[in-house]
Amino acid sequence: MLHNHHLKIFSGRAHPQLAEEIADYLALPMGRLTLGNFPDGEVFVRIEEDVRGRDVFLVQPTCPPVNENLMELLLMLDSFRRASAARITVVLPYYGYARQDRKDVGRVPISAKLVANLLTSAGANRILCCDLHAAQIQGFFDIPVDHLLAAPVFNEYLRGMGFPQSELVIVSPDEGRIKQAIKHQKVLGGGLAIVDKRRASATETNQANMIGDSVRGKIAILFDDMITTAGSMVGAVNIVRANGAREVYVCATHPILCGNAVDRLREANINQILVTNSVPVPPAKQLPNLKILSIARLLGEAIRRIHCNESVSRLFE
Amino acid sequence: MLHNHHLKIFSGRAHPQLAEEIADYLALPMGRLTLGNFPDGEVFVRIEEDVRGRDVFLVQPTCPPVNENLMELLLMLDSFRRASAARITVVLPYYGYARQDRKDVGRVPISAKLVANLLTSAGANRILCCDLHAAQIQGFFDIPVDHLLAAPVFNEYLRGMGFPQSELVIVSPDEGRIKQAIKHQKVLGGGLAIVDKRRASATETNQANMIGDSVRGKIAILFDDMITTAGSMVGAVNIVRANGAREVYVCATHPILCGNAVDRLREANINQILVTNSVPVPPAKQLPNLKILSIARLLGEAIRRIHCNESVSRLFE
Amino acid sequence: MLHNHHLKIFSGRAHPQLAEEIADYLALPMGRLTLGNFPDGEVFVRIEEDVRGRDVFLVQPTCPPVNENLMELLLMLDSFRRASAARITVVLPYYGYARQDRKDVGRVPISAKLVANLLTSAGANRILCCDLHAAQIQGFFDIPVDHLLAAPVFNEYLRGMGFPQSELVIVSPDEGRIKQAIKHQKVLGGGLAIVDKRRASATETNQANMIGDSVRGKIAILFDDMITTAGSMVGAVNIVRANGAREVYVCATHPILCGNAVDRLREANINQILVTNSVPVPPAKQLPNLKILSIARLLGEAIRRIHCNESVSRLFE
Amino acid sequence: MLHNHHLKIFSGRAHPQLAEEIADYLALPMGRLTLGNFPDGEVFVRIEEDVRGRDVFLVQPTCPPVNENLMELLLMLDSFRRASAARITVVLPYYGYARQDRKDVGRVPISAKLVANLLTSAGANRILCCDLHAAQIQGFFDIPVDHLLAAPVFNEYLRGMGFPQSELVIVSPDEGRIKQAIKHQKVLGGGLAIVDKRRASATETNQANMIGDSVRGKIAILFDDMITTAGSMVGAVNIVRANGAREVYVCATHPILCGNAVDRLREANINQILVTNSVPVPPAKQLPNLKILSIARLLGEAIRRIHCNESVSRLFE
Amino acid sequence: MLHNHHLKIFSGRAHPQLAEEIADYLALPMGRLTLGNFPDGEVFVRIEEDVRGRDVFLVQPTCPPVNENLMELLLMLDSFRRASAARITVVLPYYGYARQDRKDVGRVPISAKLVANLLTSAGANRILCCDLHAAQIQGFFDIPVDHLLAAPVFNEYLRGMGFPQSELVIVSPDEGRIKQAIKHQKVLGGGLAIVDKRRASATETNQANMIGDSVRGKIAILFDDMITTAGSMVGAVNIVRANGAREVYVCATHPILCGNAVDRLREANINQILVTNSVPVPPAKQLPNLKILSIARLLGEAIRRIHCNESVSRLFE
Amino acid sequence: MLHNHHLKIFSGRAHPQLAEEIADYLALPMGRLTLGNFPDGEVFVRIEEDVRGRDVFLVQPTCPPVNENLMELLLMLDSFRRASAARITVVLPYYGYARQDRKDVGRVPISAKLVANLLTSAGANRILCCDLHAAQIQGFFDIPVDHLLAAPVFNEYLRGMGFPQSELVIVSPDEGRIKQAIKHQKVLGGGLAIVDKRRASATETNQANMIGDSVRGKIAILFDDMITTAGSMVGAVNIVRANGAREVYVCATHPILCGNAVDRLREANINQILVTNSVPVPPAKQLPNLKILSIARLLGEAIRRIHCNESVSRLFE
Repeated sequence: MLHNHHLKIFSGRAHPQLAEEIADYLALPMGRLTLGNFPDGEVFVRIEEDVRGRDVFLVQPTCPPVNENLMELLLMLDSFRRASAARITVVLPYYGYARQDRKDVGRVPISAKLVANLLTSAGANRILCCDLHAAQIQGFFDIPVDHLLAAPVFNEYLRGMGFPQSELVIVSPDEGRIKQAIKHQKVLGGGLAIVDKRRASATETNQANMIGDSVRGKIAILFDDMITTAGSMVGAVNIVRANGAREVYVCATHPILCGNAVDRLREANINQILVTNSVPVPPAKQLPNLKILSIARLLGEAIRRIHCNESVSRLFE
Repeated sequence: MLHNHHLKIFSGRAHPQLAEEIADYLALPMGRLTLGNFPDGEVFVRIEEDVRGRDVFLVQPTCPPVNENLMELLLMLDSFRRASAARITVVLPYYGYARQDRKDVGRVPISAKLVANLLTSAGANRILCCDLHAAQIQGFFDIPVDHLLAAPVFNEYLRGMGFPQSELVIVSPDEGRIKQAIKHQKVLGGGLAIVDKRRASATETNQANMIGDSVRGKIAILFDDMITTAGSMVGAVNIVRANGAREVYVCATHPILCGNAVDRLREANINQILVTNSVPVPPAKQLPNLKILSIARLLGEAIRRIHCNESVSRLFE
Repeated sequence: MLHNHHLKIFSGRAHPQLAEEIADYLALPMGRLTLGNFPDGEVFVRIEEDVRGRDVFLVQPTCPPVNENLMELLLMLDSFRRASAARITVVLPYYGYARQDRKDVGRVPISAKLVANLLTSAGANRILCCDLHAAQIQGFFDIPVDHLLAAPVFNEYLRGMGFPQSELVIVSPDEGRIKQAIKHQKVLGGGLAIVDKRRASATETNQANMIGDSVRGKIAILFDDMITTAGSMVGAVNIVRANGAREVYVCATHPILCGNAVDRLREANINQILVTNSVPVPPAKQLPNLKILSIARLLGEAIRRIHCNESVSRLFE
Repeated sequence: MLHNHHLKIFSGRAHPQLAEEIADYLALPMGRLTLGNFPDGEVFVRIEEDVRGRDVFLVQPTCPPVNENLMELLLMLDSFRRASAARITVVLPYYGYARQDRKDVGRVPISAKLVANLLTSAGANRILCCDLHAAQIQGFFDIPVDHLLAAPVFNEYLRGMGFPQSELVIVSPDEGRIKQAIKHQKVLGGGLAIVDKRRASATETNQANMIGDSVRGKIAILFDDMITTAGSMVGAVNIVRANGAREVYVCATHPILCGNAVDRLREANINQILVTNSVPVPPAKQLPNLKILSIARLLGEAIRRIHCNESVSRLFE
Repeated sequence: MLHNHHLKIFSGRAHPQLAEEIADYLALPMGRLTLGNFPDGEVFVRIEEDVRGRDVFLVQPTCPPVNENLMELLLMLDSFRRASAARITVVLPYYGYARQDRKDVGRVPISAKLVANLLTSAGANRILCCDLHAAQIQGFFDIPVDHLLAAPVFNEYLRGMGFPQSELVIVSPDEGRIKQAIKHQKVLGGGLAIVDKRRASATETNQANMIGDSVRGKIAILFDDMITTAGSMVGAVNIVRANGAREVYVCATHPILCGNAVDRLREANINQILVTNSVPVPPAKQLPNLKILSIARLLGEAIRRIHCNESVSRLFE
Repeated sequence: MLHNHHLKIFSGRAHPQLAEEIADYLALPMGRLTLGNFPDGEVFVRIEEDVRGRDVFLVQPTCPPVNENLMELLLMLDSFRRASAARITVVLPYYGYARQDRKDVGRVPISAKLVANLLTSAGANRILCCDLHAAQIQGFFDIPVDHLLAAPVFNEYLRGMGFPQSELVIVSPDEGRIKQAIKHQKVLGGGLAIVDKRRASATETNQANMIGDSVRGKIAILFDDMITTAGSMVGAVNIVRANGAREVYVCATHPILCGNAVDRLREANINQILVTNSVPVPPAKQLPNLKILSIARLLGEAIRRIHCNESVSRLFE
């Protein structure tokens, strides 16, 4: 085998803009690929350049429409494997089905594991992902997984806003996100509080159920990994406001924004909503107070290091 | 293990009506299963009754929306496997992605094989399918595949119409379906002809390019495995009419009917269109001259035989 | 194959007493098995009765000495597979290496996944386990996993103590166990509080860092999944006492009790320590205020249901 | 791993002459390998030079004696895998058992899939094959398959004969090979006809059952993928002659020539029989009107491109 | 699944007579199966009766022609797997390629392991074999292997001959079979001796190189696992005779008898040659002093016990 | 992928001294790795330098404590695989559980095969081992195995002692090691004898049961692959002495020396005990007449050749 294992970046149809930003960071042209649907909806794939022996990265967040994006990714994998790519890394800035990661009741799937099995079965050699809903999903794979964290991107932006530490309170919007809140608090300083969702219902948001440091008169920053319908987050925001917070910032890596999320967020009293471009946010959903931070440099640098056999974990030291 | 390997039929959301007809034939209640979508489009599955040690059959044609139906099927498989079903047979009256069964050009997927790998990886123990686009797809699996043929259902109906053999001509709508036409001609008698599509374009259908027995003044019956956009089939019908056929019947197992298939078929000069219920045909697409023949008895009897360890191939002797 | 798939219970050397209690519940004799070590420490296994076609359950918590117990289990699996058991269920009341379930830093193993792969590779057909450190470990397997919860055993015992709800506070010993505490609080009633470990160090336990409902003058019940060195739990107990709790109860499913755990617990001001017999507690470690609740009935009933193809999840409804 | 992944060509005993022609094209010496049979018929293999880390190509058509050639190939694969070759490509100019590619009746093997599984299981990393009986066999593999077509070799030779297009008719010897005939007709021009084998039996070859363009007074060229007993092909030739063809040429990639094929071909009225050297034709079977076209350049160029990570599909553009 | 897992015995073409004897022992009719070769030598298989859900045993020693017999067996396995047999046990009274069980030199196959992999890959669920050349071959499989010993059959016959123990010497024909000789000597009594082949060449057999008890004037019984060309065994016999043995008996489980084995044995001075019917001995090879002991009862009883889930190892207690 | 596939040597805790000697031979620094145990005995692993794309060799004989050493090795494999090493070779100078390599009785494990499966499942790409108890263990793997022989190391040392061939007798301590004795005798010359253990018991060692050349007045050299409790070897030495040997040398590759081996060897009348450093011998066990020969050069040279794709088998020509 001759050694022209050049790096190539290809994008599915889920988020070509992110793929292009990554390619720009790496100073590479986008790999040429034709994707489409037959009249009956079946996906077709044709790779339009040589990929034999190349080190291929496929960028495809499996955001909504999740089943379309996932099947397209699987068909891309089959194409690249049969076209003799030397190595295929799936770049999943957002991992669809991640929340179904265990059986809490009987007779349900572990969808996140199924997805892992499907990706491996279709030919993935490695996974590069970002802010998994549960870190244990790494263990759903036996192929190597590089797990990036967007936290430094948020922290860097927030530090740039110059909030005095004494006025900050980091807030976990529910008990499931306390660890994430603590990690941010360690970097950003300030107090720590938890919204106690047991007693707060969506309809009675004026109740003041919080535990931890008081947010009264403070700048509250809430962190979650994703915003889907925004019901849960907006409920938390309302409680934080009812407890007297002066300013409220909301941070979430993955802006899925489905259902009436946009309406809820528009009506909520939020100073700024910070998200990343791990999934596309169509212009119609880009509220004036929505700030999209790019993770293209983070992904691009990780890809470069994977390709060059340099340490990825050192990115976070 | 105690032995209550009772037969259970479950249906995905692709075609519950067919599943119910099958269950009726078997005098069984439908298995209880909750299927739905989360607000972000992810599918959820919950099996609502005990399935440990049961002999489970999942009915799900992977017709459009193919990616939705396929992912739902894969998630059902994961659920039943983890719920300890004794055996899971996937009943695929229609096999989506079947036409992408080889690489005719470089750097494309073999989608039909990918689907086979995904089904096996997700937990299928057996496959029951019907009129595969290519019989070689059986070999894409290492698990047992029972391949049913709808031909007897068509032939029985057509014989019931009492056409005199001397007036019949069986027509292959293109050179790829000649073998199928010959098989029907052996049973139904009459002549045999082929539409020569090389010279006939969709826009010049008045040309009379046919080879084989003449259809002039005869009853022509065209057979294909599926109708998708109907462009190809209606083109063939027009040629057959241009060659002087008196009556034209069109038979196809799988009525996908996508794009403007219904309009095309409505405007074509066809006496009757015979299809099966391998995939659902919504009422809006049920043209007055569309006759849907049920394969529920065929599938039901095959399921009974599989469950009881009786011969399925004997169904076709 | 004739059908004498009788249920058989076998025990490794990790916890034969539990296996016997399970067998008693099922009114079965223990399966006969010789286990030992060669002079060089290699384990030998010989099954001393017919197991062809039997439904075999191997009881072996992988508690310390974890590597000995795990290798013995793997060798038992190889023996039973080669001896043609019809099905082998590994009963793991305690899952060793469960805490290493993800990569928090670079270049470490995901030991809990490795263990899952080893068990499957050695021949396990199913897993029956109890109070996994993270529920996602179920997804480390593609074979069926039944995950039992000891919570009802604790709740039943605690309700029997007749504490008035108004005097109870359920306490999470750190932020990682809040969900577990909430679940118990929903059943037992009373208040909810969290020990805030960020500011409490092992040496400064007199500080009063708690958030949530006050424990002053109340009966505090702390829940964790396991006690290893007891350093963390005793630290939490001290904080709870420093905050004025009147009585303190500590509950943990798995009493590993290694290092100087027993000394720490003896010196701590705890009214009662409740654990289960998921792992053996040698007499020397059985403090006067240690109460061991048996999960033998729970495991035995689950085994009976698995063998008889009855629902296990219904055990928790 | 140091990088001396040099290309090496090795040959089994099925067709060393072809392997040598390929090696000549690549200007490489043949790899040294000892092959033989023990007195009881078991095959022995010993590789006589270093192959660690080499890019190895094994040339072995699985022509008759098919079981001997296939087992020898499997033992070669095991040897090279255990000898640490970097990559092993099986070069199968002819794929034995290819015709048994589906189950047309119950309870038969899918032999072509079994062969695919055996090759993969024994250590093949890639397949390079030529004119598969059914293109779907590519999908029997999950490893990459390069599928070469001998059609350009035939077309180039035939064009060199200078037949006027107006006198040519491309003939499919039966309804199963129409697609192949159409492809040649697109390149070579002329008419198109099909021998209608339904009515023509081996004993009544004087009947004139053909459909399509008339061959009367024309030069007929028949195409098939292989000639085994020649019964079917000679039957078609006789019909073509009975229909008045002036000259008859027969083309087939794989000259298996078993049973009394040679006698049949000698007695048939054929101007020239064109085949390739995909399988060896012993001198005794080389009829005066048999022309063997070499595919060594085609295979050699494909091997060079595979080794150098260049496009193979571009060979056919 | 209904439970008609009846036992069925099928035979390949290697040794139908043995299969029939086994079926007789079990009072079962032979399973109906059509086996043949296409004109090009490819094997065809068709199972002629229902086998769904049956417990199938395939009898096929892989004796010469080994590659034909092995490929036929693999094709049978593929057929039965695809025909939905409940379980397939391969009965290999003789395991071809067993002597190539390790790499003594570099770059050779481990053919016996390749065969194990091929059998498993083709669908074998269990193996039943007899007197493997090396017992370690059991470990080449991960499916269950039952390993029968023909020693009791030989010992029973020899005891029936009434040799006084004081006149017997058990002889190992070379240093590799000493363990086998010792096992027989433990049962039959008498002395023990070893032919020292280092100094004895095929051409100088009159040399008296033996170690251990003297055979002078004694009845020598030589044991080996197989006789192939008989060169080695006849060399040992000659040495034993040269050392003054009064009578010489030769015992070997597998009478392969290839090359000029029969001539060598005819000319050697042997009182009786005892073998089993693990492989067929054609009449032309049945020397007057060749006694064939049947292992059909042994195999039949093992099959019965496997089917009924009874202990097979107890057969040898 | 960039190509910095540098060679790296890492050591587990079983035998770091040997790993360092190997690294010295290769003029490489030892790879940095943290290994330890949590308080409950679970092993932790952290690789302390980049290993992406490196060619990694893990040195870990699985000597006692075998289960600790083996589990540590498996966890190291998981770590290196997930850390994206290009290739992982397990260097097993001693293969624990090797003696349990077949089923001599029913219902026991084939532990040596289980170990092979565990290593492969955990991520080993190749094995480098030394003097396996049975050469067939190579076939327990489908990954490449390089099997080194320590015989040349012993022979070179012994030749250096200048024994006259006429005074030497090579002795097999039992009938299972005759082949090994013969191999040494071919190189060293002298006579050959076997200790006949059937009649010699541990308590009656004064009996003179030997077969073959006489040792009276000679220098006897006994060879075995390992010394565990030394009971068997010392028994053989006593017999050899009782037969009048003048000097006795004992050679064994693997000095496990467990139980009261050291006491037995001290009390036995042995001139010198030669072993290798395949496993560590703690100073307390280093008897004055124990000579440890290093195999570090042998292992180091094999590693160099594997890394550079040079022939390893040529090491023994």
